[in-house]
Amino acid sequence: MNAKDQGSTDTVPARTGAGRGSEGRGNGRRKPDLDAPYLRLESTIMEANIRAMAVSAQTRGLGLWPHAKTHKSADIGRRQLAAGAAGLTVATVGEAEVFAAAGAPGIFIAYPLWMTPARAKRLLAVARRAKLRIGLDSPGAAEQLARFDLPAEVMIEVDSGHHRSGCPPEAAGDLAAHAQSLGLRVAGVFTFPGHSYAPGGRDSAADDEARAVTEAVAGLNSAGITAPVVSGGSSPSVAYARKALTDIRPGVYVFNDAQQLELGACTVEDIALTVVGTVVSKPAGRMVLDAGTKTVGADRPAWATGHGRLLEYPEARITAASEHHATVEMPGPLPPLGSRILVVPNHACNAVNLHDHYVLAGGSGGSGAASGSAAPQTWAVDARGMN
Amino acid sequence: MNAKDQGSTDTVPARTGAGRGSEGRGNGRRKPDLDAPYLRLESTIMEANIRAMAVSAQTRGLGLWPHAKTHKSADIGRRQLAAGAAGLTVATVGEAEVFAAAGAPGIFIAYPLWMTPARAKRLLAVARRAKLRIGLDSPGAAEQLARFDLPAEVMIEVDSGHHRSGCPPEAAGDLAAHAQSLGLRVAGVFTFPGHSYAPGGRDSAADDEARAVTEAVAGLNSAGITAPVVSGGSSPSVAYARKALTDIRPGVYVFNDAQQLELGACTVEDIALTVVGTVVSKPAGRMVLDAGTKTVGADRPAWATGHGRLLEYPEARITAASEHHATVEMPGPLPPLGSRILVVPNHACNAVNLHDHYVLAGGSGGSGAASGSAAPQTWAVDARGMN
Repeated sequence: MNAKDQGSTDTVPARTGAGRGSEGRGNGRRKPDLDAPYLRLESTIMEANIRAMAVSAQTRGLGLWPHAKTHKSADIGRRQLAAGAAGLTVATVGEAEVFAAAGAPGIFIAYPLWMTPARAKRLLAVARRAKLRIGLDSPGAAEQLARFDLPAEVMIEVDSGHHRSGCPPEAAGDLAAHAQSLGLRVAGVFTFPGHSYAPGGRDSAADDEARAVTEAVAGLNSAGITAPVVSGGSSPSVAYARKALTDIRPGVYVFNDAQQLELGACTVEDIALTVVGTVVSKPAGRMVLDAGTKTVGADRPAWATGHGRLLEYPEARITAASEHHATVEMPGPLPPLGSRILVVPNHACNAVNLHDHYVLAGGSGGSGAASGSAAPQTWAVDARGMN
Repeated sequence: MNAKDQGSTDTVPARTGAGRGSEGRGNGRRKPDLDAPYLRLESTIMEANIRAMAVSAQTRGLGLWPHAKTHKSADIGRRQLAAGAAGLTVATVGEAEVFAAAGAPGIFIAYPLWMTPARAKRLLAVARRAKLRIGLDSPGAAEQLARFDLPAEVMIEVDSGHHRSGCPPEAAGDLAAHAQSLGLRVAGVFTFPGHSYAPGGRDSAADDEARAVTEAVAGLNSAGITAPVVSGGSSPSVAYARKALTDIRPGVYVFNDAQQLELGACTVEDIALTVVGTVVSKPAGRMVLDAGTKTVGADRPAWATGHGRLLEYPEARITAASEHHATVEMPGPLPPLGSRILVVPNHACNAVNLHDHYVLAGGSGGSGAASGSAAPQTWAVDARGMN
């Protein structure tokens, strides 16, 4: 598929979205503007990613709780559950509401929430629809949470080397005992080995993860607490997950992105999500796309080769990005002005949060061989902005 | 104001938004969730910033065309116009529609748009409400634009050293002549000295800007084209703008942000916009806020001291940021868990685009001394997502 073909393919995707669950909910979303950079989802690739992770988890005897912050979509969450996910992981109260309403039997807020009366009221409604678990990493947050009589379990967060939130593994037993003494029910421990997001870090982060949760579980056991759930896993490290885990919570695997590609956690063929941009300028041997940080996201880790990749031009690099400009350098002839270009975001989660809709191309419902003026099939980013 | 005071102040801002122009438009926006990180606008500071730039432009005899991509708000655009702005600058067709509807007498799309039939139809409606100018930087885009008979003027974009879009200054005359031969009306030249976004770069970028537009104007004159408008100016460089300019297009000045602060383009007292986050974790001497890249933005230039600043803790640094975590290191005692903290984004424009509303605190309409359960006054981010 060359640039010209992409243009005609992506500008007019096939089949209308009539009858789709997420559309027409009166959520006030505008129809997608396909002249502006928009999110393009290859649903056949996404479905394959969902199946592959479900099979991998099942084969290894791991409970799969995909992190739904990546997609924020009820349509996609339901597909993950249908493929065998035990529940969905989320980061915020708003996401918990969206995915409980979408039918998830279990919701794990893998975040050390600071409880408030307003949040407790909303989570009470969530807990009526789904089994609810909430992250906890400090005695202070346990005391705050215990002021509300929420029908939820807590999960002790431990720091396995990413040095973000989470208590030290050796403190997990005391924290769990404190929580239990306050009347909270402890379901288990969890960690996020986010230091897997570094070249060569995937395997060693999985090692650190296993060591941390093993020490944490031993601490809980010493305190007389039997908590069966041991949850870990980031998309880069999940393939290396050790036997110490019972559950995994990968998120980005559903789409993949330039970070996963450059870390070796996926191939180009596994990338389901792109932002469709247009060549607007070709000054002095470079090319400028209109897909900048307001549509692709501004994530740019130091080890990345640029501000995202171009799906069909593997040698191209986005050397600079601003709100409405992606500056591309590449060998060979540049595509003509006006060409549609598929940009792979560095970080799918932040790219999705910039859009109201996925526009489907190919696979279930969508089609890459469209013509005419039919509206494209879209799925809503239901939890957009619920951060 | 200490952290505790901020909590009580910001959780319950005063006065309802009833009767505000931007609210209740049936645009489907949810009410702001004040338990989640939200945008807080000190409107008294914003009004002072708007006045100061208007006075500065008037004193120097410069036409002021504020870049509305920063705020995307009809309420704020109208205030800029009321203070003396000649028109508003935008980056996209969607923004042009919003600000033409808000009453801007002139709209300048300072971007090398690739024209399409759908865009031309929308811009025809814009041009019926406002004098419309569109950026142009290549013969190919001129030919494409000329296929549509839009009642708009074009502005030739030149590259003054930022090396993004824009033709070389020495090519401006030929491009203008080509555009004119196609029937397009050339109003002038413009540049964005974006390389002012670097330590020590403000003055020298203004030099480069003046040199580039002077050469471009000479080129137009040599081609027999008299085009009176010479537009430049970024927020960091605008104080240094040379006499070569007739118009300026600063954007971020309306709020200011951590980039402007660290470049020396504003003081802490000039910062009108923050994201209100909560302390959720305090592991091992650091502090974690829930205001991460999905609410503050992921911009992090290499020269910045971190991922944003804390308004009331000048020594604090956000040493790491992920979607829902900002990791803070700071000297002295850490605020208690649950404290509300005012985070200054690195880049206001991208932070605003992550939110549906501004929540007003202080000044016209809002109040910092609220109590009770009154809904906060909000302004809509009308052009959110129109990228």
